[in-house]
Amino acid sequence: MSSSDIFIGETIGTAVLILLGAGVCAAVTLKRSKARDAGWLAITFGWGFAVLTGAYLAGGVSGAHLNPAVTLGLAIKGGTAWGDVPLYLGSQLLGAMIGAVLVYAVYYGQFHAHLTDPEIFGTKGTEEGMVDQTAAPKAGPVLGIFSTGPEIRNAVQNVLTEVIATVVLVLAILTQGLNNEGNGLGTLGALVTALVVVGIGLSLGGPTGYAINPVRDLGPRIVHAVLPLPNKGGSDWGYAWVPIVGPLIGGALAGGLYNLAFA
Amino acid sequence: MSSSDIFIGETIGTAVLILLGAGVCAAVTLKRSKARDAGWLAITFGWGFAVLTGAYLAGGVSGAHLNPAVTLGLAIKGGTAWGDVPLYLGSQLLGAMIGAVLVYAVYYGQFHAHLTDPEIFGTKGTEEGMVDQTAAPKAGPVLGIFSTGPEIRNAVQNVLTEVIATVVLVLAILTQGLNNEGNGLGTLGALVTALVVVGIGLSLGGPTGYAINPVRDLGPRIVHAVLPLPNKGGSDWGYAWVPIVGPLIGGALAGGLYNLAFA
Amino acid sequence: MSSSDIFIGETIGTAVLILLGAGVCAAVTLKRSKARDAGWLAITFGWGFAVLTGAYLAGGVSGAHLNPAVTLGLAIKGGTAWGDVPLYLGSQLLGAMIGAVLVYAVYYGQFHAHLTDPEIFGTKGTEEGMVDQTAAPKAGPVLGIFSTGPEIRNAVQNVLTEVIATVVLVLAILTQGLNNEGNGLGTLGALVTALVVVGIGLSLGGPTGYAINPVRDLGPRIVHAVLPLPNKGGSDWGYAWVPIVGPLIGGALAGGLYNLAFA
Amino acid sequence: MSSSDIFIGETIGTAVLILLGAGVCAAVTLKRSKARDAGWLAITFGWGFAVLTGAYLAGGVSGAHLNPAVTLGLAIKGGTAWGDVPLYLGSQLLGAMIGAVLVYAVYYGQFHAHLTDPEIFGTKGTEEGMVDQTAAPKAGPVLGIFSTGPEIRNAVQNVLTEVIATVVLVLAILTQGLNNEGNGLGTLGALVTALVVVGIGLSLGGPTGYAINPVRDLGPRIVHAVLPLPNKGGSDWGYAWVPIVGPLIGGALAGGLYNLAFA
Repeated sequence: MSSSDIFIGETIGTAVLILLGAGVCAAVTLKRSKARDAGWLAITFGWGFAVLTGAYLAGGVSGAHLNPAVTLGLAIKGGTAWGDVPLYLGSQLLGAMIGAVLVYAVYYGQFHAHLTDPEIFGTKGTEEGMVDQTAAPKAGPVLGIFSTGPEIRNAVQNVLTEVIATVVLVLAILTQGLNNEGNGLGTLGALVTALVVVGIGLSLGGPTGYAINPVRDLGPRIVHAVLPLPNKGGSDWGYAWVPIVGPLIGGALAGGLYNLAFA
Repeated sequence: MSSSDIFIGETIGTAVLILLGAGVCAAVTLKRSKARDAGWLAITFGWGFAVLTGAYLAGGVSGAHLNPAVTLGLAIKGGTAWGDVPLYLGSQLLGAMIGAVLVYAVYYGQFHAHLTDPEIFGTKGTEEGMVDQTAAPKAGPVLGIFSTGPEIRNAVQNVLTEVIATVVLVLAILTQGLNNEGNGLGTLGALVTALVVVGIGLSLGGPTGYAINPVRDLGPRIVHAVLPLPNKGGSDWGYAWVPIVGPLIGGALAGGLYNLAFA
Repeated sequence: MSSSDIFIGETIGTAVLILLGAGVCAAVTLKRSKARDAGWLAITFGWGFAVLTGAYLAGGVSGAHLNPAVTLGLAIKGGTAWGDVPLYLGSQLLGAMIGAVLVYAVYYGQFHAHLTDPEIFGTKGTEEGMVDQTAAPKAGPVLGIFSTGPEIRNAVQNVLTEVIATVVLVLAILTQGLNNEGNGLGTLGALVTALVVVGIGLSLGGPTGYAINPVRDLGPRIVHAVLPLPNKGGSDWGYAWVPIVGPLIGGALAGGLYNLAFA
Repeated sequence: MSSSDIFIGETIGTAVLILLGAGVCAAVTLKRSKARDAGWLAITFGWGFAVLTGAYLAGGVSGAHLNPAVTLGLAIKGGTAWGDVPLYLGSQLLGAMIGAVLVYAVYYGQFHAHLTDPEIFGTKGTEEGMVDQTAAPKAGPVLGIFSTGPEIRNAVQNVLTEVIATVVLVLAILTQGLNNEGNGLGTLGALVTALVVVGIGLSLGGPTGYAINPVRDLGPRIVHAVLPLPNKGGSDWGYAWVPIVGPLIGGALAGGLYNLAFA
């Protein structure tokens, strides 16, 4: 696999992943969206089909990791060369940032209508919806569209939740979702992986909002910090390390468990 | 692929697409429908399985484009001959109109019960439901069953939303959904494409209702204008160009992006 | 395909179809069911996965028609011998009755709790839920679990709705869902057919509850008439011909359309 | 298939099954979970994708039975050696217990917030939610996250419901879901089996919560009895035999029916 394949597949694939993933959070959160309050099932299917679309689109180009935890697990398994890892990670982060900017473009009017509504910007972090965060002074009213946040803020517990959820994801991909060479995710594998992500969201997403992917959280959080959104509030950088460290530990554990038990 | 194959596959396939797609909007909108108020998830899955049914049925005949934006993207990619494009587009528009008439036939009693209810026809455009339109004087009370409309009316923003959503759809189809000859969508490809459409609806449908297909909007709008529905109100022709121009730009951009990055 | 294969596959497959299909209606309707009021999306996915289970189970044995309209369409196409048709139909009707009895066994306690509740049996046909019927004096309070009923009672309109919905189902099966010999529904075909049924339910089920299958309605209606349910009310035999005649016309039209346009 | 393959595949696969399955019950039940009150459809899809994830992950290793009823049915069919059965069952029970402990780890904060809330622990068994149990003094307030319980407590009826639901599951797996050698569940088979489980949940889950798997109920019930949860209440051991005996009878009946009718 050439460097340009990796760069193109991971950048565009991850951009699509975040465009649809953060997109569904915007859709159910923002005022004057037709999907407002569509519920948790809509969010989890939305993220799952975001994975499907990104993986389907980029699978034949870069293998569609779209996630540093997956790349790490594959490198430990031996399916991805360690020398390619930095390019994978950089492309994924770039793609995640592009995706978050595109969500802003798609929902431009809704973001501004929402954030200039006195009921919203006057009550940071207390809006209704699935993406509420208990840490009111740390998280702005639309940060939940971009990044994850815990319902109960406890670093050890939150990291543990992300670790376990990521082990499930990466172990499933290592055992079946990617062929032995680690380059190329078949159409059926993309579909099943996507539904596994729906399942992880439904089952393990309750405490932290299931980042299970460092760039899925970091990329949009950077964009949130930079975008000229009115009354957007803070970007909760104090929590930002959790959805990076947790998934990376999870990906590494999955890779190790694969080599120990399944290889 | 013969002209008659294209005509038959695209006309019947697009008719089924619109019958089920506009059908689910009728199902959740109209009084005395068992599915009334079934919610946004029902609408997005309904449209997705409408794509699945049309593509499954017509895939082996015409390749099941069912969408001028897809045909345009495929022509730019080189998978469809430019000379066939007019026949594809004409068949798709004809099919979309047939589909919209069939929705009227299926929901005949519901349309009349709904539109002769004083609570509905007395308050054009203010009925509850997923398909509300803020432009009250422009859109009639059941136009949302036939055509899309924006939550916030702003031409540039609405076009941009449709462009981005269509790029995602057509790029996914160009990279994986259709084989290299561009004629023939496998069963698994039809399934994944359908779920991609569910995902686009969940994630990017909030601002404009995701036309992502010029004939999906234009065909039913023409039928709405012509049908003898009581108290139906206007057909909002002022907005009609947006879901034509946006998806066509999106299809062309996806074709260009494919040739640039993936070919 | 031997007669015993047809008998076993169609009887057991249709029994499973109705057990799960009527089962989901019981689940969302009856008091003291964990799924009560789970909504229209649950009903439509429940019926779709009922088709999936029956077709997956019987596909390799009898081809898994499970529906006289499908058998009729296949016979017109030439995929099923006319001489086998009576055995298919008889086995399907027997299976449908067995399935309805099994629903009664599974939900025995719930049926009795529901029907002996003064709020329910005192108000025939006016209970809440998706399966309400406007023809209060004709339909008993749990008939909707067994058989379909129209929201607006109009024979021509109700037949037309069933005809159109059945054409969509059978045409999709004829073009793709069954191989050329008409015996054997692949796993992927079973899956897509099931999701097509979900789509038909979401989109076209609003007016009549989408029988789209004569035995799906007749078999359980016979069982409803015979079962010793307290306060069960009438079986609405005046409507019973509609979900038989409509789907049979639809199956025949789909067979003719296939021969005309797709063969 | 080696003993270590069976042990690894069944232990890890069943752990993932219960982690995601009991996980979705925690997600929709517990206070301060983002998925709280996500509804019955979320529960049934969550359990289905739990099966998918476990089966996808372990299919190539141990055949992914993940359920003593499936192992029993396969042994009767002749696809699994009787001598391997004890190892399958032991591994499945161990995996189920591990999965339940992992749910506790993922939702640690939510469990404690929920169970120390005076509104919850003061009203054993009367909390809202899908997993309510009518036998208030027997079942503690979060037992429904771990184990199943009947809406109407009647041993014969509850066993019968579990028998019928398990016959559907195991018969579908025997006819199609596992190849003739009984070792190896293909990706598409895993997907369809998972959706069959969603269907069984939607349609037959109303009376007893569809254990359809002895270790799915027993393993987490043991963990519930042992875990140091505050105010957790009883583990309802009086009911524990029903979701063991019912599914085992169902698995045996399905195996017998397969040999009689389908072999």
